[in-house]
Amino acid sequence: MAKNMIIGQSGGPTAVINASLAGAIEYALECNEIENIYGMVHGIQGLLEDNIKDLSAHFANRPSRLNRLRTTPAMFLGSCRFKLSNSDEEYEKIVSQLEKYDIGYFFYIGGNDSMDTVDKLSKYIAKNNIDIKVVGIPKTIDNDLMGIDHTPGFASAAKYIALAVRNVAYDTAIYSIKSVHIIEAMGRNAGWLAASSVLCRDSKNVAPHLIYLPEIPFSVDKFVSDIKAKLEEYNSVIVVVSEGVRDENGKYISARGDKVDKFGHIMLSGTGAYLKEVVEEQIGCKVRALEPSVLQRSAGHTPSLTDITEAQNLGLVAVKAAVAGESGVFSTLRRVSNKPYTVEYYTERVSVAANAEKTVPLEWITQSGNDVTNDMVEYLKPLVRGVPQIPYRDGLPDYVNVSYLDKAKQKYKN
Amino acid sequence: MAKNMIIGQSGGPTAVINASLAGAIEYALECNEIENIYGMVHGIQGLLEDNIKDLSAHFANRPSRLNRLRTTPAMFLGSCRFKLSNSDEEYEKIVSQLEKYDIGYFFYIGGNDSMDTVDKLSKYIAKNNIDIKVVGIPKTIDNDLMGIDHTPGFASAAKYIALAVRNVAYDTAIYSIKSVHIIEAMGRNAGWLAASSVLCRDSKNVAPHLIYLPEIPFSVDKFVSDIKAKLEEYNSVIVVVSEGVRDENGKYISARGDKVDKFGHIMLSGTGAYLKEVVEEQIGCKVRALEPSVLQRSAGHTPSLTDITEAQNLGLVAVKAAVAGESGVFSTLRRVSNKPYTVEYYTERVSVAANAEKTVPLEWITQSGNDVTNDMVEYLKPLVRGVPQIPYRDGLPDYVNVSYLDKAKQKYKN
Repeated sequence: MAKNMIIGQSGGPTAVINASLAGAIEYALECNEIENIYGMVHGIQGLLEDNIKDLSAHFANRPSRLNRLRTTPAMFLGSCRFKLSNSDEEYEKIVSQLEKYDIGYFFYIGGNDSMDTVDKLSKYIAKNNIDIKVVGIPKTIDNDLMGIDHTPGFASAAKYIALAVRNVAYDTAIYSIKSVHIIEAMGRNAGWLAASSVLCRDSKNVAPHLIYLPEIPFSVDKFVSDIKAKLEEYNSVIVVVSEGVRDENGKYISARGDKVDKFGHIMLSGTGAYLKEVVEEQIGCKVRALEPSVLQRSAGHTPSLTDITEAQNLGLVAVKAAVAGESGVFSTLRRVSNKPYTVEYYTERVSVAANAEKTVPLEWITQSGNDVTNDMVEYLKPLVRGVPQIPYRDGLPDYVNVSYLDKAKQKYKN
Repeated sequence: MAKNMIIGQSGGPTAVINASLAGAIEYALECNEIENIYGMVHGIQGLLEDNIKDLSAHFANRPSRLNRLRTTPAMFLGSCRFKLSNSDEEYEKIVSQLEKYDIGYFFYIGGNDSMDTVDKLSKYIAKNNIDIKVVGIPKTIDNDLMGIDHTPGFASAAKYIALAVRNVAYDTAIYSIKSVHIIEAMGRNAGWLAASSVLCRDSKNVAPHLIYLPEIPFSVDKFVSDIKAKLEEYNSVIVVVSEGVRDENGKYISARGDKVDKFGHIMLSGTGAYLKEVVEEQIGCKVRALEPSVLQRSAGHTPSLTDITEAQNLGLVAVKAAVAGESGVFSTLRRVSNKPYTVEYYTERVSVAANAEKTVPLEWITQSGNDVTNDMVEYLKPLVRGVPQIPYRDGLPDYVNVSYLDKAKQKYKN
């Protein structure tokens, strides 16, 4: 007998989370085992507060809307940062909400924390012999999930960083003066995004000249001498640094600013902004710090086609697995070959990914600690390939309408 | 009898200056009156230092290279910021260099300062009865040139700003908390780029909620109360502010308004960063400042097709005019109609543009001083239309090789 499904999104946005949502919806619409498709607005928090959207009504027989969903960045259903409290009361409330909507299949698209939610909820449901399949769908620009070759969302952010470095390299190449550009990439503990800037390099481009990841203790002195050495060779030196670089005592470089505000509190500047001051003081040439910030995770106008395709397939695979009876798993992929690039989709116990963090292997970082090896390049290269067709209107990408979220958000006014 | 031509680029980069270069080269290659095509590497400074590139050899019978030049951002020939000293000695040196290369046609692609160079040089050459035609080709992301409906480079930067605002709007829409995003657009005295963020708005998007231009004196108190009012209505408020906003005494809001470049222009950075602190202190909600900085002028992966086409045509029109005997002019365009959007190309005395600045008409700014009118929207809309075919390779735009500039730059080591 057919049951309903519910799906939600959680954590930080990426350019392709909605492609996973589109893949799940598309498969579910064709699936006899699934009757109605519901969305949790603002994730598990929305479920608890009965903030539910009828996705069947919104997307059925609307192929162009579903197509635009695929290339709309961030999250059509909104997000939350909600950690299950582990109280029976909370689980009972969740289950009673799921029963109210006659849910047989529960899907959650997210990163480590969201996989933790999937893990805990699926265990509670199994323990209590409730017939609901709980399946995770991975996403995160940080690429730090265990149990997957690379996470959906990472490739598009990686492409953005490589693009930004290339554009900056062309911008600065025109000047006949010594200059340093410091580009700060996201990544608190894992340097995957900073590393991906290496994709800018080819037979015509040497930038980025230096890459610093949080996996290697960061020395400001070495950073300065590295730059000085590169300035001997090039007029324009481009440096990519992870926001999360730390000194040998584990202290964030971004926390080393000695500026104080009017109350005498130490002001935490960005890592790039702090290092800009260091270069100004110790080298004295022209220096700019660029912090693409959220632009790197929400660049819906320039995603990787490989990323969109994989995100969509992972949405589909999750629904297929749930309908086949799996629970407590997440959809994932392994790389079968690099040339040609092929992947294989499967499911993995979600406990593998819950709250774990995959950092860059140390052997993919050069001995000098300021660059990545060719193994990293080979790993990254296929991920950013392919330019998707983005629907445009009046010169801008034509995304789906998410303005309904603002009404929803009124509920959470603070 | 056929003569040679020389062309240079000057000032700050845009996404489409090379399209003007491509348009000029393409026309000159077919033109009987022009024998050889030379490039000044690093503008007039390169000419003085005999840093010359043979463009005929580089681009003749290379249609795919010329095509990639069209969509390569920044400047293939490099830039300089060189102000003519007005000494006869300097003019004589320039003319002797031009005679050395048997130049009959001199072209300079640039903004106000470059048009000043064209103006002075053409006057000196005319006064001394030298047979060299001197013609300007306009460019600037700031859109502040007089004597032209809008400048090449502006439309692509405008598109970038509108895109950034839209992507940020989708990124922040997912959260159920009050937040303010402040996006700082380039523009010292003219608010055209900040104004162009209005293009993000359509039936599905209300962002940006507030727009501040340097044409209207900026009040920090009003800024705070404007944001407070918008936060009553929306959870997420997106504000676009020109880097050049000033208080009623003409003092830049930017925290560091005391550095000047060699033209005496005050160097600005940190308007958004300063206003972020203001919002944190006086409103206390989550706030982010985004400064796309050079990314907005070098976004070669997402130019406007209209912009590329017009930039290219203005290169062609300049060469055509010079060959027809014009000098002391620049190629320009006027808008003939908006629906359908059509323009007409012609030439204008370069003195009209030299050192003048076109700011936003006050009647295109709303009474409230924090938004633009529909006249501005109608003016901007056609400019960002059209998505060009960008050649891609391995997932990134395949620009022309400019690494030769680095060797050239060694000469100017400082």
